[in-house]
Amino acid sequence: MRKFGIIGIGHVGVTIAYTLVTKGIADELVLIDTNEGKAVAEQLDLEDAQARLDTTTQIKIQNYADLSDADIVFMTAGKIDAAKESGNRWAEFEYTSASVKNIAPQLKASGFNGIVIDTTNPCDAITQYLQQSTGLSTSQVFGTGTFLDTARMQRVVSEQFDTNSKNVAGYTLGEHGDSQFVAWSSVQVNSHPLEEFAKQQGQVLDYTALEKEIRLGGWSVYQGKGYTSFGIATCAVKLAEAVLSDAKLECPVSCYNEEFDTYIGQSAVIGKNGVEFVNTIPLTDDEKASFKNSAETIKEKFATM
Amino acid sequence: MRKFGIIGIGHVGVTIAYTLVTKGIADELVLIDTNEGKAVAEQLDLEDAQARLDTTTQIKIQNYADLSDADIVFMTAGKIDAAKESGNRWAEFEYTSASVKNIAPQLKASGFNGIVIDTTNPCDAITQYLQQSTGLSTSQVFGTGTFLDTARMQRVVSEQFDTNSKNVAGYTLGEHGDSQFVAWSSVQVNSHPLEEFAKQQGQVLDYTALEKEIRLGGWSVYQGKGYTSFGIATCAVKLAEAVLSDAKLECPVSCYNEEFDTYIGQSAVIGKNGVEFVNTIPLTDDEKASFKNSAETIKEKFATM
Amino acid sequence: MRKFGIIGIGHVGVTIAYTLVTKGIADELVLIDTNEGKAVAEQLDLEDAQARLDTTTQIKIQNYADLSDADIVFMTAGKIDAAKESGNRWAEFEYTSASVKNIAPQLKASGFNGIVIDTTNPCDAITQYLQQSTGLSTSQVFGTGTFLDTARMQRVVSEQFDTNSKNVAGYTLGEHGDSQFVAWSSVQVNSHPLEEFAKQQGQVLDYTALEKEIRLGGWSVYQGKGYTSFGIATCAVKLAEAVLSDAKLECPVSCYNEEFDTYIGQSAVIGKNGVEFVNTIPLTDDEKASFKNSAETIKEKFATM
Amino acid sequence: MRKFGIIGIGHVGVTIAYTLVTKGIADELVLIDTNEGKAVAEQLDLEDAQARLDTTTQIKIQNYADLSDADIVFMTAGKIDAAKESGNRWAEFEYTSASVKNIAPQLKASGFNGIVIDTTNPCDAITQYLQQSTGLSTSQVFGTGTFLDTARMQRVVSEQFDTNSKNVAGYTLGEHGDSQFVAWSSVQVNSHPLEEFAKQQGQVLDYTALEKEIRLGGWSVYQGKGYTSFGIATCAVKLAEAVLSDAKLECPVSCYNEEFDTYIGQSAVIGKNGVEFVNTIPLTDDEKASFKNSAETIKEKFATM
Repeated sequence: MRKFGIIGIGHVGVTIAYTLVTKGIADELVLIDTNEGKAVAEQLDLEDAQARLDTTTQIKIQNYADLSDADIVFMTAGKIDAAKESGNRWAEFEYTSASVKNIAPQLKASGFNGIVIDTTNPCDAITQYLQQSTGLSTSQVFGTGTFLDTARMQRVVSEQFDTNSKNVAGYTLGEHGDSQFVAWSSVQVNSHPLEEFAKQQGQVLDYTALEKEIRLGGWSVYQGKGYTSFGIATCAVKLAEAVLSDAKLECPVSCYNEEFDTYIGQSAVIGKNGVEFVNTIPLTDDEKASFKNSAETIKEKFATM
Repeated sequence: MRKFGIIGIGHVGVTIAYTLVTKGIADELVLIDTNEGKAVAEQLDLEDAQARLDTTTQIKIQNYADLSDADIVFMTAGKIDAAKESGNRWAEFEYTSASVKNIAPQLKASGFNGIVIDTTNPCDAITQYLQQSTGLSTSQVFGTGTFLDTARMQRVVSEQFDTNSKNVAGYTLGEHGDSQFVAWSSVQVNSHPLEEFAKQQGQVLDYTALEKEIRLGGWSVYQGKGYTSFGIATCAVKLAEAVLSDAKLECPVSCYNEEFDTYIGQSAVIGKNGVEFVNTIPLTDDEKASFKNSAETIKEKFATM
Repeated sequence: MRKFGIIGIGHVGVTIAYTLVTKGIADELVLIDTNEGKAVAEQLDLEDAQARLDTTTQIKIQNYADLSDADIVFMTAGKIDAAKESGNRWAEFEYTSASVKNIAPQLKASGFNGIVIDTTNPCDAITQYLQQSTGLSTSQVFGTGTFLDTARMQRVVSEQFDTNSKNVAGYTLGEHGDSQFVAWSSVQVNSHPLEEFAKQQGQVLDYTALEKEIRLGGWSVYQGKGYTSFGIATCAVKLAEAVLSDAKLECPVSCYNEEFDTYIGQSAVIGKNGVEFVNTIPLTDDEKASFKNSAETIKEKFATM
Repeated sequence: MRKFGIIGIGHVGVTIAYTLVTKGIADELVLIDTNEGKAVAEQLDLEDAQARLDTTTQIKIQNYADLSDADIVFMTAGKIDAAKESGNRWAEFEYTSASVKNIAPQLKASGFNGIVIDTTNPCDAITQYLQQSTGLSTSQVFGTGTFLDTARMQRVVSEQFDTNSKNVAGYTLGEHGDSQFVAWSSVQVNSHPLEEFAKQQGQVLDYTALEKEIRLGGWSVYQGKGYTSFGIATCAVKLAEAVLSDAKLECPVSCYNEEFDTYIGQSAVIGKNGVEFVNTIPLTDDEKASFKNSAETIKEKFATM
């Protein structure tokens, strides 16, 4: 039986819930939010959907004790308004760190011993704080981090060449925030190194412009719809499926980096234990410097928490 | 190739879009909204999701001409705030009828000749207006109507007996609004007539209370989350799939009733032509009176449009 | 985590396996067969498929100990040739009862304490024998029974009216074999009682001919393809999903009937405990006699085992 | 509306059919086989499944005229026994080339103008013959070719490192037969070049042994189950989905190579026109020689047709 919990059912949380229910991924689902009325409403709306679906999910709400035997808990509490006003994910930090300080002990007290997947921003810091405050291992707690920024890189690069984003390999690494960077040396299109493919196609790439578009991808979505939900929820669900099926999926997530002693977006292998291991990919010297810089940025801000 | 359009990408429209993309139902999808920035943002957010999905959907925005060869167009424009304040779907009528007056000629001009599935409220009146103003046949234009209210009836009844809403058969009929009614004579639980099943279980049912809970199901969701999306989107997608596969799915929708010369929620068979035929189910005299009353309510209000 | 075992990977077993893997239903799957080479080959073929799927399933083979923590075990051992030659499912009995005598103690010894779904023929007798020989409760062990014959009834009736088999309600009951019968009083088409619907459509139904076509549905498939697989596997997977999600799905299966002290095809509610309860539906006197006759047929043959 | 045809409903063809129906991919499906009784039986078995599925597919049989407006036709006629006895796909050539000579004119006469995906062996030669004899363009006709052998390479390599086959990138190229080869220079594991990853893991790879295991993957499956079906069907369905959604999926298929004037397994981009373009990937000199050798092998044998 697959059992999931979602703590914080704002736009991201409910999109995850809707996906788990409508795709028949979850056998049991627990929704928790500080707004009880919203939890009741989302449960009702999902129940209305179930009469028209072929699969069934048992949906419960508002009780941390129900998380005790969950396989996976998504941490999706957030306060997008704070971030939106300033255009910076750290602007949510004050609010979300307070949320996590409230949530972590309750999650711990439930006896939950599964995997936590965090989407709450600032993702790297919040994930680290969650890990420390729940006492779960660094394997068990990780964040979506640059898995989403990598999807945005794939989208932006694919648009340059009128190809499918799934044909683009490579990584956005570092902070799920302004100090992130694309490891351009890792990027491939249709199985060609990016630079070679661009030459074949007679294109000269403006890497600075591309990277800006990738980094600001989230803000573009925010500006138009007031939040982001579909990309991030799809990333979170894919990671959850990798855990449940012990898929050993290699992809970038926010997880603990020993060298820099911080959570940060880096390639890892995701399986039944959560982060099975960090998969260090080769970087150029410039990329290494960018990674170091991003790690330091995260650590500095984390220290203020 | 399956091609869909969605006109109006508020909460319902984007949930339909997300479902069509993430379940791999749509090969091509056109999003249209009066808010261009929102259309851009939803397209971006869906594209971000696609790098993490196994299927691909071509997504276009804002051009009615792209609907010319669509199989199905969802009409989902709405203004939930108007309805929410008053607790009455007719409160949206002024706004949504104006929207439809603007949209219908553009849809017609595109050369679109497929099936329209309407979720815009007040559903029965708007669907009728859409049919008349586009010049498409009454087969081609229908609304979700009481398909959703029937799902709510299934949910409410199933909760009485701790069973699955999919085990509850029967109909909510009439207006997708206050004059709707449950055709209790049609309701079955676990393949037993409702009243007999209640007796078996030693329960005495309060039909008035149940019916109120069903009718107010939507408002309960509104109050908690500010809108409804999951139930209605799931209903709309299921109807669309029935059209594409010529499924001849028997279910209640809002479609044209000859006797009362109005659109109204009634059992019909949905196939490749949209409404293949109305499937008149037997009703008690009281239920027939309720149906007539609901039809007259819709007609009166429609006349004010 | 969802874990399944399949004992006997002939046509039915591997179709179940393929479905669980390709639809992403199973996180872990154990295949067991007396033909080791076939188990190796099926595992390889399924692994070849996995590189092209979005989901992952861990596949193991040939070790009963791996079933200890499975949620569900499908029992699908069979010897179709014996049945085919004689046109009678009891012809398989000698072979399959010997198989079960060999399998049951190994399943029991593994410590398995989940739900067993049996498709092996003669289904009613084999399911009963499995229950008795494993010592699992009658809730935990049930067979597909007339769930498949009911699907065939739905198909045959739907063809009469050019409608969808999903619009046909009602039951085939009794033995998954020659003494089965359609409870015509339970059959509905497009939510109308069958006889009334036929009258509306100006049709006079030949119930004897219809029932023959339903009962011989399996043999028609056998004659053309040498076995049946798709219908039965789809039934078995649907029942398994109902167990995992505690769906309380009401449907006909082969389960224990107290009155006649035998396994037999009857309506039941399927949930996390397997058969949650038998859901006795109203029958006419003739149908009751047919049910009794069928129960006695099963018992007589079972006694020879 | 998505419409598919399958010509030849042996093990591969029916597995494709089952997948298209049970995953709700096909709205309409046409099955054609020289054995009419088998076509009838497979249709019946699939129809029996449909009452238990949430989606619907219209299934027709045996009429080439029904293919006139199909989007995609799978060519899956084969005679596995011939191949099995000799352990060589060319052993099927005599039989399958005769089949194609019979089928091609009927397909052409239907007016079909969509995309043909061929799985019939020897895949490269048969696909070429199909293209020539139907008069469809080289874009419109392609074969699964080494898409399956590449899946086998991914499986074999992933097993070396206990990772997921989806984490293995790279190609098996050339003939879908004995002269195929792995382009080891293209292979990556967890985003590392294979050789580097092996070093990191302290492994020394025996490429000859790996390649043998890959090339003989199909025979291992044949030996155990008498045919292959799941891997090949999954490959074929994935290609079909890429065509329908214009996915521009980059992957190895058997398609026309201008330099060598033959169909052969090579990287291409699959979209709505079938093969959008050949995506020539960089090869070492040895790999180029292997490719040339494989092309010549195919041409020689094709000349005997």
